[in-house]
This record gives sequence, C-alpha cells and structure tokens, in this order.
Amino acid sequence: MALIVQKYGGTSVGDVERIRKVARRALATRNAGNDVVVVVSAMAGETNRLLKLTNEISRRPSEREQDVVVSTGEQISVGLLALAIQELNGSARSFLGHQVRILTDSAFSNARIRSIDAAKLFDSLKRHEIAVVAGFQGIDEQGNITTLGRGGSDTTAVALAAALKADACEIYTDVEGVYTTDPRVCDRARKLERISYEEMMEMASLGSKVLQIRSVEFAMKYKVPLWVRSTFSDDPGTLVREEDKAMEDVLVSGIALDRNESRFVVRAVPDNPGVAARIFGALAEQGIVVDVIVQSPAREDGRTDVAFTVGRPDADKTFEQVKKIAEQLGAGKVEREEGIAKVSIVGVGMRNHAGVAAKMFQVLGGEGVNIRVISTSEIKISCLVDEKHAERAVRALHTAFGLDGPPKRGQEG
Amino acid sequence: MALIVQKYGGTSVGDVERIRKVARRALATRNAGNDVVVVVSAMAGETNRLLKLTNEISRRPSEREQDVVVSTGEQISVGLLALAIQELNGSARSFLGHQVRILTDSAFSNARIRSIDAAKLFDSLKRHEIAVVAGFQGIDEQGNITTLGRGGSDTTAVALAAALKADACEIYTDVEGVYTTDPRVCDRARKLERISYEEMMEMASLGSKVLQIRSVEFAMKYKVPLWVRSTFSDDPGTLVREEDKAMEDVLVSGIALDRNESRFVVRAVPDNPGVAARIFGALAEQGIVVDVIVQSPAREDGRTDVAFTVGRPDADKTFEQVKKIAEQLGAGKVEREEGIAKVSIVGVGMRNHAGVAAKMFQVLGGEGVNIRVISTSEIKISCLVDEKHAERAVRALHTAFGLDGPPKRGQEG
Repeated sequence: MALIVQKYGGTSVGDVERIRKVARRALATRNAGNDVVVVVSAMAGETNRLLKLTNEISRRPSEREQDVVVSTGEQISVGLLALAIQELNGSARSFLGHQVRILTDSAFSNARIRSIDAAKLFDSLKRHEIAVVAGFQGIDEQGNITTLGRGGSDTTAVALAAALKADACEIYTDVEGVYTTDPRVCDRARKLERISYEEMMEMASLGSKVLQIRSVEFAMKYKVPLWVRSTFSDDPGTLVREEDKAMEDVLVSGIALDRNESRFVVRAVPDNPGVAARIFGALAEQGIVVDVIVQSPAREDGRTDVAFTVGRPDADKTFEQVKKIAEQLGAGKVEREEGIAKVSIVGVGMRNHAGVAAKMFQVLGGEGVNIRVISTSEIKISCLVDEKHAERAVRALHTAFGLDGPPKRGQEG
Repeated sequence: MALIVQKYGGTSVGDVERIRKVARRALATRNAGNDVVVVVSAMAGETNRLLKLTNEISRRPSEREQDVVVSTGEQISVGLLALAIQELNGSARSFLGHQVRILTDSAFSNARIRSIDAAKLFDSLKRHEIAVVAGFQGIDEQGNITTLGRGGSDTTAVALAAALKADACEIYTDVEGVYTTDPRVCDRARKLERISYEEMMEMASLGSKVLQIRSVEFAMKYKVPLWVRSTFSDDPGTLVREEDKAMEDVLVSGIALDRNESRFVVRAVPDNPGVAARIFGALAEQGIVVDVIVQSPAREDGRTDVAFTVGRPDADKTFEQVKKIAEQLGAGKVEREEGIAKVSIVGVGMRNHAGVAAKMFQVLGGEGVNIRVISTSEIKISCLVDEKHAERAVRALHTAFGLDGPPKRGQEG
C-alpha cells in the first residue's frame, strides 16, 4: 500500500464527463489499496473567464482581489470531483488552501508555499477518504487568499507529496509524457521514458509547458518521484527522478522552445557593484520572473549593457519598472523587443562533453538563423532567435543531436 | 457620520456595468462621511449555473461539497466589487466568510449564523476602506464552508449590521420596496412606506420574496432598522422597523402569495405525545423547513391526520423521510399533493379586530375559491388553495381589505 498524490490539470477536468473519468481513475487507485490525495486545477477555460472579468473591471486589477476571484476556479473543481467520487460510492472530501492550511508568502498572484499542515489530510486518509485538494491556491499569515501563479497546481501537488512523504506524485495532463521537443513543432519528437530533475527544470523553464518549474524544484529538493502521464490513456508516461549514470550517456535529452519572450536591453549601465541587484531586485519585488540575463563585459567608459528577457505577460510592468530604475542609475536608454523566441538544448550529458555549444551554433548558422543572445549553463545552452526562425531551428537541432524518432502520423503516439 | 451596511442582490451585480453602478453608490455613501460595509450576492444566474453543475454530477449531491461549489459565486462578486471601487479611486477590501469569521452551525446549505468576529471589519473601516463582505456563506467550527440557504445574503447583511451596531441596514434589490401584494399579480398593489418586523416576517415567510425571513428575525431581535430599496432608483424604499401605534390602525397591511408549496397528509397517526416531534424533528434534522402545520382533533379510534406543507424543492426529500417515519409510527398512508398555493392576509391590526377571518373566507367563497386548509396566527390568516385560483383570490382580497391603489401602467411605479 502506497500513498499517491495525483494531479489533474484543467483539460482533464474540463467538463462533467471528464470529471467522472478522473473520479474513476482516482477511485481505481484507491481500490487497488493505495492512499490517494488528488490535486485539481480549474476547469479548462475557467481561469481565463475569471481573469477576463477582473480585467473588464480594471485594467490593472489589485492582485489581492484578483486572487480572490481567480481561486474560485479550483474551488469549483474540488467540490465537483469530490461529488463525482461519492457518486461512484467512493468516499471523498474536498479541501481548500485555507482548510489544509497551505501557508504561502503574500506575493499575490505568484506566491510561494512556506509550509503545509498535513494533519487534516492524514485524518482524511485515515477515514479512508480520497482527499481532493484545490491546486494553485494558498493562504498567507494574515488569512488572505493567494495563488501560486500559472501552473501552480503542479507545485501544490509536489509540495503535498513532499509534506505527506508520498511514494509517488503523478501529474496527469493531456500529453503522454515529456518529449524530446514539442511534437507540434517537430513530428519526429519522441516521448522520454525518464529524465532527471535538472533536465526537467531546464525543459520546464524553457517552455516545455508540461510542468511548472517550481514544482520540479520542490520535487528535486524532497526527492519526490514524479510521473508525467496522460489522463486519457494507460501509458506509464515519463518518470522524472534523480540523475543516474545511464542518463549521462545521452548528450542532449531535449530541445526546448519558448516563444513568449520579450527582450529588454538597458544601455550604458554604470558598471558598479550592486547595479544588477538594483535592477533585478526591483523586478523580483514586483513578482516578475526574469529569464535569460546577459551582461556584456564593461566598455572603456566603465559602462555596460544589460540584456534580459521576461515572459510576454510581464512585459508592460517590466518596461515601466526598468525605465524608472535606469533613470535612477543614470543609465542610457531602455530598449524593448517583442517577437523573440528562445531555443535551448538540454542534457546532463553536456557536462562531460566538449563542443556541444559549437555544434549548436554551427547547426543554427547552417540554417541561416541569426543568434541574438547566447546564454549557457552546465546542462543547457539557449539562443534567442527571431520568432519566425524558431521552429526551423528546433527541427534542425532535433535531427543534428540524434533525437529523431520515426515521424508521427496525425495525432497518434 | 453613520455606519451603514448595504446589501446588493444578484440582479444588482448581474454584470460588470451593474457592479460599477453599485461601486459608485457605495462610494457615494462613503464620501458622504459614512462608514460603509457592503454585502453582495452572487451575480444573477451564477448560483443556478453552479447548482446545475453539481446536479449534473450527482442527483443528490452531498451538501458539504455543494456548499463548497456554490459559495464561489459570492467570492467572485466581492473580488469584482472591491476592484470596481478601487477603480473609482476608492479604498476597498473583500472579505470571505472564513476571513470575517462568520461562524455558523454545520447545517450545510441551510446553516445558521452563531457569531461574527467584527474586529477585522472594524480594522478595515479604520483604514477608511469600504469592507466588501461575501453574503450567503460562513464557516463552521471545523472550518468547513457553509451556506445560509437561498436569500442568505440578507441574513449576512443584517447579522453584520447587528454585530457592528450599524445605524442602518439597506437592502438593495430590483424592486422599489415592500408592496401590499405582488404587483405582477395585482396591478393595484401599493408600495408601503413602512411595515413592522412582525408583518414583514409574515410577508417574507409567505412568499413576498423581498427579504429572507431569517434576516427579519435577526433585525427584529437586534432592532436593526432595515431599508428595502431599489438599486436602480433614488426612491427611499420601505422602512422595516418596530411596530408603533399608527400601524395598528391599519387592519391588513398586505396580501402574500406563495405558489411553490407541496402539501403532505399523514393519515391515521396514533395520537400519542411526542408523535409530532418525531415527524417534524426528523424533517428538521434534514434541514427541511416546514411551513403550515395542521393537526386535526383526534378521532374516536385515537388517531389523527397531520397535514403540512414544505417548499417544492424539498418535496422529494420530505416524501422519502415522512414515509419512513409513518411506517415506524404505525401510521396510515402518506399523501402528497403539488400545485398548492397559499394566500395570506397579514396585519398587526388584526390583533384588535374581530371578524377578519370571517371576512376573508367570505371573500374567497364569493369568488368560488375552495379552501383546502386554514391556518391562523395573531397577525396573519393563511388559506391553502388550488394554484389555479390563487391570483384571483389575491386580487379579490386586495380590494376587499381596502389596499387598492390606482392601477399601474406598464412597468412604472
């Protein structure tokens, strides 16, 4: 008998029929002798409907109140799923963020989990109930409702799995697992049987939207084995786990593509200690997640250019903030550019192999793709390129690094 | 400077434009120098949409989970209204049942308020905020979400007014006040300038759907002056307050009509002490509110018939329960009848006047309306009649008791 946390995304609970399907799956896991905690997202489309309402009222709604409105999506889902399980003669009980007591900081719309009080859930499991927990939401010290940011239900699931010391955390989604790259971009993409936390983090942060990056961080920290599986099939999916020897034999595990980037360049920044902290500290305070950061070596005048990217939804807020900071720092002008995509290759094997970056640049050059910014880490190399070249770049890299499987026919595989 | 609690119903916050209108009205009250607490219902149609979802999943959904789902309607409203006030440069903050701590019993879907912790609201008012509180919802001792039953937002508003010792409680709705009878049934209905709590309770419980009865009980108990007003006009509305001498000069204040009744008769009930308690105790446990109860004098065989009515939505549950109890009691068969309406005349003046009942029966007889059951209290007389005669009965009584105003033209007045 194991303790399993299952998380179902918005598509998986998109309508009443699908909620019944999820109920059957959760109950089957329970009836196989496991303790089951289920985390659910809002029904597909619901979060956007709610955000549309808040935006009709206010162009820049207060995030506290927006969280109050938006968190209702998950609340509806947990109630309905608990009812669906009961309707199948299962025992179930819904829990909201303030009922489990998922304590977060007060960064509305992008809060971080601080602690989880597992006692109520253990009580529920002792009563042989399936505990159905609202994803995405928490509560701060003052009792305000908070949300964890888009995809936050994954984080809820993994944090619960860690707090409950679960044997596994299964993330159900509408794809069969983690792929070498987006199958819609490259028809030779292959499903991975397993991938390391580190690689998954790079893939997630780089736009493979299967898992929220923070959930993978959590899973790695607490060594929670994560299964990424499809709600609509019995395929075992992809196991995300600690790195092992065999993983290192593969040079590149996947190619990530993120289209939704805005690039900023702050020109002629005085190259003094603490300057970068001023810029990025101010953005962090606003809850803006900065992605790639590149600072050029200082010029002879003691000034430097700082380039970075943020997700498109944060671009307006970022531009406003950065112009303010640039003025305070006596820096030059702030440039903003949309239509930027980021193409990255990811693999723990890179650590022990030379020449991977060179090969990447060579492939992109051969395709006539101009590289705007390069950024590297131990296990990934990212290139910012024009949106219009991005897909071609992904396909070329997928082939060049030996990831191609047989081409897919239609929607199969 | 006064402390005013305003309550806006579902129609008043039915869309974004109307929410803006409510925000303007609340802010105008605040800017006139008052402390303002606003209670809101779910946007019109939202509660039904949510109930439809729970009913699609389960024919008889668990009321705990149903409350989790249904309470999201008010949660959305408070967030949106707080945003709308902020958008007008007002200061506002939303509060949910568990945040104010509106403590209720655990009768899901029909809970009663036990206490309210006003401290958080006073803090909010001290910060010069308009406190926007979710109606209809509370939390029980175990932290479960509860709801107060249909129209429960009125009760929330009055209970808050009592807890905060507010100077007035304004109930905004889509009608101009309390009428002598339903203007859709009788075009000579008149708006009342004032009415006593007692009369209002009888009118409310008898189907004048302007105020939830429990809210009037609360208002009477704590002497909260209640204004029933229209969101869409500046008419002062109807004041519901303590009885005074002038009220007694009016024989009948209003005619109430409730169409939505189901009648049950339990035949041949053993006429022992405690029998009625067995029947109605079992129904109360299920949260079923029983309306008219009539027990005939015992027959020679020591048995009696017990007749009562419940609201149509509770009829199925009631039938099931009562059949069970009847069997346990060794009673005869249980009859059930739909299509019953209740016509009542209400007035504190009745106490001091003889012959009111006789006049009522005479008017109904003259109209050829057959009376099925009669029930009387100090200030009201109710007759159950066939649904199809109900409107005719109301019009005839309205004229006979001198309530007619000039006939209305179209939607005016």
